[in-house]
Amino acid sequence: MENNKQIKSTKVEFNISNIFLEDLINKIDNKNVAEVNLLLSKLHISDVAEVVSNLPEKKRFELFDLENFNINPNVIVELKNELQKEILERITSDRIVRIVNSLESDNALQIVENLSEQKKEEVLTKIPLEDKNILEQTFSTYPEDSAARIMQREFAAVPQGWTVGQTIDYLRETQELPKDFFEIFIINQLNVPVGSVASSRILRTEREVKMSEIMKSNKFLIPAEMDKEQVAYNFEQYSLFSAGVVDKNNHLIGMITGDDIVTVIKEEAEEDTFRLAGVSVEKISDSAFSITKKRFIWLTINLLTAILASTVISAFNESIEKVVALAILMPIVASMGGNAGTQTLTVTVRLLATKELVSSNVRKIISKEFLVGFFNGLIFAFISGAAIFIWFQDIRLSALIAVAMIINMTVAGFFGILIPVGLNKFKIDPAISSSVFVTTVTDVFGFLSFLGLASYILNI
Amino acid sequence: MENNKQIKSTKVEFNISNIFLEDLINKIDNKNVAEVNLLLSKLHISDVAEVVSNLPEKKRFELFDLENFNINPNVIVELKNELQKEILERITSDRIVRIVNSLESDNALQIVENLSEQKKEEVLTKIPLEDKNILEQTFSTYPEDSAARIMQREFAAVPQGWTVGQTIDYLRETQELPKDFFEIFIINQLNVPVGSVASSRILRTEREVKMSEIMKSNKFLIPAEMDKEQVAYNFEQYSLFSAGVVDKNNHLIGMITGDDIVTVIKEEAEEDTFRLAGVSVEKISDSAFSITKKRFIWLTINLLTAILASTVISAFNESIEKVVALAILMPIVASMGGNAGTQTLTVTVRLLATKELVSSNVRKIISKEFLVGFFNGLIFAFISGAAIFIWFQDIRLSALIAVAMIINMTVAGFFGILIPVGLNKFKIDPAISSSVFVTTVTDVFGFLSFLGLASYILNI
Repeated sequence: MENNKQIKSTKVEFNISNIFLEDLINKIDNKNVAEVNLLLSKLHISDVAEVVSNLPEKKRFELFDLENFNINPNVIVELKNELQKEILERITSDRIVRIVNSLESDNALQIVENLSEQKKEEVLTKIPLEDKNILEQTFSTYPEDSAARIMQREFAAVPQGWTVGQTIDYLRETQELPKDFFEIFIINQLNVPVGSVASSRILRTEREVKMSEIMKSNKFLIPAEMDKEQVAYNFEQYSLFSAGVVDKNNHLIGMITGDDIVTVIKEEAEEDTFRLAGVSVEKISDSAFSITKKRFIWLTINLLTAILASTVISAFNESIEKVVALAILMPIVASMGGNAGTQTLTVTVRLLATKELVSSNVRKIISKEFLVGFFNGLIFAFISGAAIFIWFQDIRLSALIAVAMIINMTVAGFFGILIPVGLNKFKIDPAISSSVFVTTVTDVFGFLSFLGLASYILNI
Repeated sequence: MENNKQIKSTKVEFNISNIFLEDLINKIDNKNVAEVNLLLSKLHISDVAEVVSNLPEKKRFELFDLENFNINPNVIVELKNELQKEILERITSDRIVRIVNSLESDNALQIVENLSEQKKEEVLTKIPLEDKNILEQTFSTYPEDSAARIMQREFAAVPQGWTVGQTIDYLRETQELPKDFFEIFIINQLNVPVGSVASSRILRTEREVKMSEIMKSNKFLIPAEMDKEQVAYNFEQYSLFSAGVVDKNNHLIGMITGDDIVTVIKEEAEEDTFRLAGVSVEKISDSAFSITKKRFIWLTINLLTAILASTVISAFNESIEKVVALAILMPIVASMGGNAGTQTLTVTVRLLATKELVSSNVRKIISKEFLVGFFNGLIFAFISGAAIFIWFQDIRLSALIAVAMIINMTVAGFFGILIPVGLNKFKIDPAISSSVFVTTVTDVFGFLSFLGLASYILNI
């Protein structure tokens, strides 16, 4: 029966219910610290972080103001940056010092990074001198977003001459090791890592065997100044679980593990989403003013291309004066082209990012998108032609929109892939600059084909 | 000096040079298998996979046709799905059987999944009966994209009564264990997992200690039928390295490790990118016809909204007949609103996905986006007003576009956030359905504000 109970308590996902939140808020209101602590102690730290995030701001502060409120320091680490900063600003520097002292080095670094300048100074004077020096050295030597900023300084390493038995004895006796580790590094007399052995491999090997006999020497060592996105690429490409970090002298100074970089990998995939929409990376804490500034350039470029499209229209103002229906219908063709182009563009950008679209298949895929554009053109020529005939009872307008639709959607498919592929060839990020080119092309061709054909027909 | 050499050979990223490719193609042309094998043997399997992907199709087939070409089976696993299928179709079923037999269970499953029906049958009759039964059972019991399809069947597990010493002895003596493992599962007499111990923890514990004393009981067990995206969410949320997979009877049947789900996490973040552009998940192997079909619905919806916008224009056809410049300028306001709305929408969709935008801060963020929209409106009212004055030398047109711009960009910011937040509240994926609402709103308001104001001015 006991086992059954354990199974049932195995949750795979925790969903914060309103009942749970109300219960917690109730206990906060009553300043019933003991019960608050008990309630939260049953949850995983990640879930506590989510509960804290979901509290109304006022209650969140009341919670942290409670005397004897007992929070696992790792909950603070799990909070989103913005929330973390708010809470760190709220609590005393003495409390922050206790939190920092109890964390592993990578998490401690993250907390100190997120302190205001004044609090940072206060905290740095109160933590052990050795930790202070390491933190200050990291801040001054390695840039933000470098491997050194996300690595942990705790790792297990033994000299290359040791046996498995010596290693096991050392591991049993030494306190200053990370809680869990996937591998143990082997270093030579110059403190340079020459290989590593998985913990499970050591477990399975006889005590007499030398570590150097079972080590894997083909190690991926991460230079401390490497950008974290590059680190993520290596983890992904080579299916790494953990990797050592080395300084300029090739000395081992830290370790990065897979769970540290899951977030980095996710952020990287997100970047394309933002870039395609013409947004640079925004934080939820950015002010309205700074967001306006960040979005300004893209909107300015869009204004220029919209004006360009308008000059195309103005070339046909005589036709529009004769048949005002042209003005009514002309946005339809441009809009359809814009959407079809964006679809092709988005797919192409991701195919380039995942390296699925390469020089050996680029011709094939371009032909395919051209064909898709043409198919779309045919289909929507028919549909829009029929719709316009029902609306205006004019077969010429109907034919006009149909032909313009075929032209513009084919153009959209073709340029929707050609532009990002071309930019990529010139080492320009296709996500950030393709949209503007593609929509300009589809707008200009949309108006040009529709109004151009119309004026041609009107003139004969 | 020897160590120095080792350090230099430590590469962090392999970049395929054209020289390397040409060299390889040369060797393929000369049918010099020994040198081809030697050249590729120096590379990491992930890099070999990349080299193979970058070969022209013809050379790729020639490579696999070479007699005695020696490829690590894991290279086939690393290939993108489409390429993998192509190559599996090309090589004999005997060769596939050898590949499948040498792989770990999760990779073997992936290969068999990607075979054509005919090849699959051939291969299944030739592999050991036990493996065949397991594969067929997995295919019939667990859906595609379930945890069972990505787990490996090899794992290490010991009874809960055992000591550390017994465990180490068992691990040393047993052959059928995964190559490396981060943790060892503890199971009770019913074969139900009750906890796990990290390999490094075992290394650091005395032989006499009982496994049940050092195990972590709060385990995240993954039901075999759970969707892999949900599995990824759990790995990310709880920073897991590995997790056991259980069947309906809570029996441990496999293990999923962090490197298996990095791809899943990445795909999930990508999904929003596609959905925002109105594209469902496409594979590079999809035919032009099937792509056209997949993109059809979104384009149809766009056609309807474009026609809706046209009916707004048609309401003002008399004004356009009087002043044709209105037709020339009206797309500018709509286009700027559309872009500003898409920016806000994209940011909002990601904030919702990452659970940063929650009920406690939603009012604050909506007000902020409203303000950003208004700021943008003011800025681009000024810029576009000035540009139009230079073009048309008409202060009334200038004022007209300025006022319309303020209205439409404020509307864009407001609805850009309100619509995804609203959809999310009703449990509708905001990424998939927001775009159409937002651009419809900005088109309609764009034409309405510009032409409405114009006809009002013309009438007085």
